[in-house]
Amino acid sequence: MDLQKNSALQDLLSQHLKDLTTCEGLSEAEILAGIKSGHMVLLGNPKHPNLSPCLIGQPARVKVNANLGTSPLSSCLESELEKVKVALKAETDTIMDLSTAGDLDKIRAAMLESCPKPLGTVPIYAVGKNLIDADRGIPTMQPDELFAEISKQCAQGVDFITVHCGLSKRGADLAKKNRTLGIVSRGGSMLAKWMLTNKQENPLLTYFDKLLEICRPYNVTLSLGDGLRPGAGSDAGDAAQFEEVLNLDLLCQRAQEYGVQCMIEGPGHMSLDKVAGQIQAIKLLTHKAPLYVLGPLVCDSSPGYDHIAGAIGGAIGVQAGVDFLCYLTPAEHLTLPDEEDVRLGVYASRVAAHAGEIALGRKHALAREAAMNCARRNLDWEGMQKAALDPSMVEKRHAVEKTEDTCAMCGKFCAVKMLKDI
Amino acid sequence: MDLQKNSALQDLLSQHLKDLTTCEGLSEAEILAGIKSGHMVLLGNPKHPNLSPCLIGQPARVKVNANLGTSPLSSCLESELEKVKVALKAETDTIMDLSTAGDLDKIRAAMLESCPKPLGTVPIYAVGKNLIDADRGIPTMQPDELFAEISKQCAQGVDFITVHCGLSKRGADLAKKNRTLGIVSRGGSMLAKWMLTNKQENPLLTYFDKLLEICRPYNVTLSLGDGLRPGAGSDAGDAAQFEEVLNLDLLCQRAQEYGVQCMIEGPGHMSLDKVAGQIQAIKLLTHKAPLYVLGPLVCDSSPGYDHIAGAIGGAIGVQAGVDFLCYLTPAEHLTLPDEEDVRLGVYASRVAAHAGEIALGRKHALAREAAMNCARRNLDWEGMQKAALDPSMVEKRHAVEKTEDTCAMCGKFCAVKMLKDI
Repeated sequence: MDLQKNSALQDLLSQHLKDLTTCEGLSEAEILAGIKSGHMVLLGNPKHPNLSPCLIGQPARVKVNANLGTSPLSSCLESELEKVKVALKAETDTIMDLSTAGDLDKIRAAMLESCPKPLGTVPIYAVGKNLIDADRGIPTMQPDELFAEISKQCAQGVDFITVHCGLSKRGADLAKKNRTLGIVSRGGSMLAKWMLTNKQENPLLTYFDKLLEICRPYNVTLSLGDGLRPGAGSDAGDAAQFEEVLNLDLLCQRAQEYGVQCMIEGPGHMSLDKVAGQIQAIKLLTHKAPLYVLGPLVCDSSPGYDHIAGAIGGAIGVQAGVDFLCYLTPAEHLTLPDEEDVRLGVYASRVAAHAGEIALGRKHALAREAAMNCARRNLDWEGMQKAALDPSMVEKRHAVEKTEDTCAMCGKFCAVKMLKDI
Repeated sequence: MDLQKNSALQDLLSQHLKDLTTCEGLSEAEILAGIKSGHMVLLGNPKHPNLSPCLIGQPARVKVNANLGTSPLSSCLESELEKVKVALKAETDTIMDLSTAGDLDKIRAAMLESCPKPLGTVPIYAVGKNLIDADRGIPTMQPDELFAEISKQCAQGVDFITVHCGLSKRGADLAKKNRTLGIVSRGGSMLAKWMLTNKQENPLLTYFDKLLEICRPYNVTLSLGDGLRPGAGSDAGDAAQFEEVLNLDLLCQRAQEYGVQCMIEGPGHMSLDKVAGQIQAIKLLTHKAPLYVLGPLVCDSSPGYDHIAGAIGGAIGVQAGVDFLCYLTPAEHLTLPDEEDVRLGVYASRVAAHAGEIALGRKHALAREAAMNCARRNLDWEGMQKAALDPSMVEKRHAVEKTEDTCAMCGKFCAVKMLKDI
């Protein structure tokens, strides 16, 4: 990518590049080369107040996103802002506001205000809400309504947007015809309904250059959505999915030429044995653009525990090249996540990211492990707390024997202590 | 293994073989061949009242164990019996009583009474408790004390016992000298202390035949313990670990010749990239004896979330050949698990087992996935509940929109519904 074409990104880099080198353990040259080659993106809209931008793309640290936002059953702004706090406390790297109920502009503004980390959205949700509220069917959507919404959100300060630009009529047809579970992306299903009813191509594909024009002045990064991600393990890796990936690659190249940063969104449901192969295939097809995945969920039958099924796939995914993990919470497939779900979701993804980075031999991950093991060897509970992904868990749950430095699980049976004097 | 040598096992088979074929989806011939070759074991002591025996060894279903039991900080029998109920409700396949405080004989008897699934123990814990209570050091243990304890527990009805017979003086020396975290197995550290202080070989190794003699009449299965399992990722796959595996293989062959069934216990902490290779190496070295693993934990820095780190390793482990997963709970490395920890631990392991079995194409796992996806396609919430690993989660957490069949996460934005009429 030619940085000269994106002055907002240039400004962002001139302000933050030095800090980024410290936080990522990379040189300025490595970061700049990553961004220029399109293998990394720097999320940050100059309109977002008090923003710390976030670098995405390995070997930068693997990042984690938390999805928040209202739904028709629960549209309380205050409770979403509480969830923002919980997600930030659990050290999420970004947040997405997926609200579909209430005053969406007000909710988005409040979230931008309270979140110093990059905030993403899926603009078609706001358009969909307006249509549903006005009792208009999705197929009556005018492309200009969608672009107007995107413009508004860019000006508001949103840092990245999911846009399902690669979902073609051909892909929608393939998914409709051949799948166990059709289309499970909400944005994707709206666009598919629009296309299949109107017999027209996806406006985000047709007018892609318009999108680039809107986003570039704000350095809004496109998260090129996977509207055809598999919703069942048995749909994984099918023609519909890869039809979209091929389109995403072409669009990503086009955007980079224009000076707009892009990430690629990835699957989805797929069995354990498919994860590494699928991730490698997608990374190769998309010329190593940052890959942002939901899951992958390695089983379909774990509602209530999808954060665990997602962590299994996420860890293997990171090892295979995933750059950015979107969390799944225990509420996935069931209901809107509450605060505890949000906390668990962020930590499950952080465990997955950490496990994947250890496997890749990343220095910061190995240093954390070494610190933990040194503390364990010394029965140094403060040291364990510091090294833990979630220090509060060690603080809260470590019940010490009254007269011992061992824990309540083993007490005098502590294996580490047993051999100390030999 | 020559079945003729183990009449308790023959009796068990004559009572239960038919039921096992139904529940495992295997033929009588397959089960008998599996047991004879030592690739499968059938857990069940005729003295255990109302027992449903459990077959372990793929392609039989992968099984899950829950560790329970008192500790010096919490030695309430009633609360352990509540945890037995929770573990059984979550569909654990076996339970281990790892109690180290209170009246251990009474606790064990009560657990056997209340648990119709196989119950395992680590007999050296009871010996260790007696020594600590009598203010005698571990090195004063007389081998006969250990064998007397094992005899008592076999007669009481215990179905399998962890015995660290393969932990040699050479292995203990290697682990003491070269490791980040030495020995982290409680039983292993007791035996190592005994050996290194007394400069004698492990009595469970020296008098292994005595152990066989005690166990055979009760068909007590030996779970050949991994006293030298790595306690830090950086210790994984070292000489100490494999020294023990080599011994376990020899002992396993000896036991099978004598007519005693054996499982091999496995690691432990190891990074993601090592799991498949390590598991395959151990399975090969031990001639495909059933492999029973704790984890593998793919990171060290996740206290509070070790059930997730363990599920990641467990899923990959099952795909690589693991037969039996010992759960890890969110309390691991911190304190004794409470009821909620037990529930989460069992489900995390069941998710891992299911994910691994899907990857292996096991029929029962694929059938569950197909049922779930069929229910999802039809927005059939009752069907989803039936297919879910934890039906109660769907029942409790699925908040339905009042006038819709969709859920509170998506409502009118339901992707599945969006395209139903096209």
